[in-house]
Amino acid sequence: MRDLNEADIEALAIGAAILGTGGGGSPYIAKLRCQQALRRGERIRLIALEELDDDSLVMTLGGIGAPTVSIEKLAEGGEGLRALRAQEAFAGRQVTALMSSEIGGGNALEPMITAAAADLPVVDADGCGRAFPEMQMTTTSIYGHHSTPAALADEHGNVVLFQKAVSEVWYERLARSCVVTMGGSATGAEAPMSGRHAKRAAVPATVSQAINIGRLVLRANREHVSAIPLICAEEAGVHLIDAKIVDLKRHLRGGFAVGEIALEGIGAHAGSRASVVFQNEFLTFERDGTVEVCVPDLIVILDVDTGHAISTDLLRYGQRVAILALPCHDLLRTPEALAVVGPRAFGLEGTEFRPLPPRPVPVQSLSILPEESP
Amino acid sequence: MRDLNEADIEALAIGAAILGTGGGGSPYIAKLRCQQALRRGERIRLIALEELDDDSLVMTLGGIGAPTVSIEKLAEGGEGLRALRAQEAFAGRQVTALMSSEIGGGNALEPMITAAAADLPVVDADGCGRAFPEMQMTTTSIYGHHSTPAALADEHGNVVLFQKAVSEVWYERLARSCVVTMGGSATGAEAPMSGRHAKRAAVPATVSQAINIGRLVLRANREHVSAIPLICAEEAGVHLIDAKIVDLKRHLRGGFAVGEIALEGIGAHAGSRASVVFQNEFLTFERDGTVEVCVPDLIVILDVDTGHAISTDLLRYGQRVAILALPCHDLLRTPEALAVVGPRAFGLEGTEFRPLPPRPVPVQSLSILPEESP
Repeated sequence: MRDLNEADIEALAIGAAILGTGGGGSPYIAKLRCQQALRRGERIRLIALEELDDDSLVMTLGGIGAPTVSIEKLAEGGEGLRALRAQEAFAGRQVTALMSSEIGGGNALEPMITAAAADLPVVDADGCGRAFPEMQMTTTSIYGHHSTPAALADEHGNVVLFQKAVSEVWYERLARSCVVTMGGSATGAEAPMSGRHAKRAAVPATVSQAINIGRLVLRANREHVSAIPLICAEEAGVHLIDAKIVDLKRHLRGGFAVGEIALEGIGAHAGSRASVVFQNEFLTFERDGTVEVCVPDLIVILDVDTGHAISTDLLRYGQRVAILALPCHDLLRTPEALAVVGPRAFGLEGTEFRPLPPRPVPVQSLSILPEESP
Repeated sequence: MRDLNEADIEALAIGAAILGTGGGGSPYIAKLRCQQALRRGERIRLIALEELDDDSLVMTLGGIGAPTVSIEKLAEGGEGLRALRAQEAFAGRQVTALMSSEIGGGNALEPMITAAAADLPVVDADGCGRAFPEMQMTTTSIYGHHSTPAALADEHGNVVLFQKAVSEVWYERLARSCVVTMGGSATGAEAPMSGRHAKRAAVPATVSQAINIGRLVLRANREHVSAIPLICAEEAGVHLIDAKIVDLKRHLRGGFAVGEIALEGIGAHAGSRASVVFQNEFLTFERDGTVEVCVPDLIVILDVDTGHAISTDLLRYGQRVAILALPCHDLLRTPEALAVVGPRAFGLEGTEFRPLPPRPVPVQSLSILPEESP
């Protein structure tokens, strides 16, 4: 267990945006709220998966809805706590710890706001190791946890309990329709899972991982060097291309931001042509007619100068970007997982998942780089 | 308390369709299911409001969704029972009796299916004395009952609990969006109310009333006479016009069937021109430029030959119809009620509600006409 401070939260927001692979929503508002909680004297405590008792109750909690809405329609503040309390009242049991369902984007920080208010620790792990657009796409669901009964709370005070959904996809559908009615964003809390299941099925140490990525970016900016080789070295990443966006198609379909960007290589990559397809998150990276990287491996687009993530809504014609590929966690590479989060689950029928070489050394829980450069 | 038999159910379906004032959904499937329950040996027991203990728990239960869907997407059968059991489990209390939220249309019969399966009585009353398109439009809500926590069950086995809605309109919105996701129809059970509240706020004796109207139609058909004067005599109704439909505009807007029919008088009414505006139910009857009858009073369109109700989806060009106006219950005529179910609540800004003369003698609970003609 360790306490996170304001600088940790600053770094986490940067790293979470990078692990969002284009989606997951902006961490900006959630970051401010976490920092405000710390200034009020509340604590944000990070607990390692290994520290959890098998019988402890771990609940995922986070924002559901359109990322573009949640940054304009601000939360009232008590949504997460109301969802948590509704869950506890329904189950008649108290939750031991909160966890992020996806470390990518704002939901890396959302559970921390509620955990601070409820004086609960947040687990150093999540259900994706990145961001995914739908709620059945978590390792905790894929490996057998049912998200219902789940609670959904909005800023007005409405609370809906999805008492029983016959599948994770039905939970996604029903919750999504209520979220739309609630104005496009709300806070959901899924049925608590045992510590035993979290240890088996959650992607470990991803809060530490995101903080460390953020630390590298901050350090690179301080030292006026490029963050890109630092991230690649730390994350076993591949620097695919530096390129300029020369075409951009983006539209909303069924509540998702879908589209494609066309790229022309710059610098050492001049002459190459590439493209990236996305559905909330970046799904494929294709170069000269060949798909080189695809979901669930992470495709990350960074500002070539600052190393900060560029999400799909911030893509612009003419932007100069660096594109990285990071290997996803092994939990996302099994046949069960690929059926839910592989290319076919996104309608990419012709695309075969050819995994990137895995990380040689897994991230260690609570192994957060010091605030000043190592 | 009295048992209903198959003939009562047959008459109830006819009368409920008439009290549906064009909406409420077809009672056909629910009628068959009630009759099937009786053949299985289950009982459908009708209990008078006056027989309820003040502290008994009365729950409204019925179909929610588009009437045209519910007749094509058949129920699985256990929806109502699952909604009832979810309510009871959440509240930790057993329900004493079920009640219809609206006597108009299929929801007159829906609670009977579940009540028969659960061996509960059904109250001889409802929340409208007719049909209305939205869930906040019930006398029980208008006079202070909160519908949430409410349960919603579909044919797949999904159960959603609207634990807290900040208003009846929010309950309507959230439930409606889930119903759409569930395929357009589902079964809802609202928070139980006390017997005390039901006695004060529910429209009394409307199951008896609907059965009696149905009996009159059946008797008229048997005796080859017109049902229309019989219904007018029994219900303090006004026979407005016999007419032919000469124009019909009908479309779906926000999930509602909205439109207008133009009519030319026939027989004794030859030379008159009239029109009826509807939103699921008939809202106004206008003749020669003057609105003569409007919501919440009942505008009923009957087949001029058979006396059976014609719902908005069955209106056809060239049809010969009789149009009746029936006075609504006094509970719908207070300022509180008119704010929710008066013409302005339906966007009819220029229309003033001028009530029909009320029924001289209210319907008596459980006072059902004998099956053979009186």
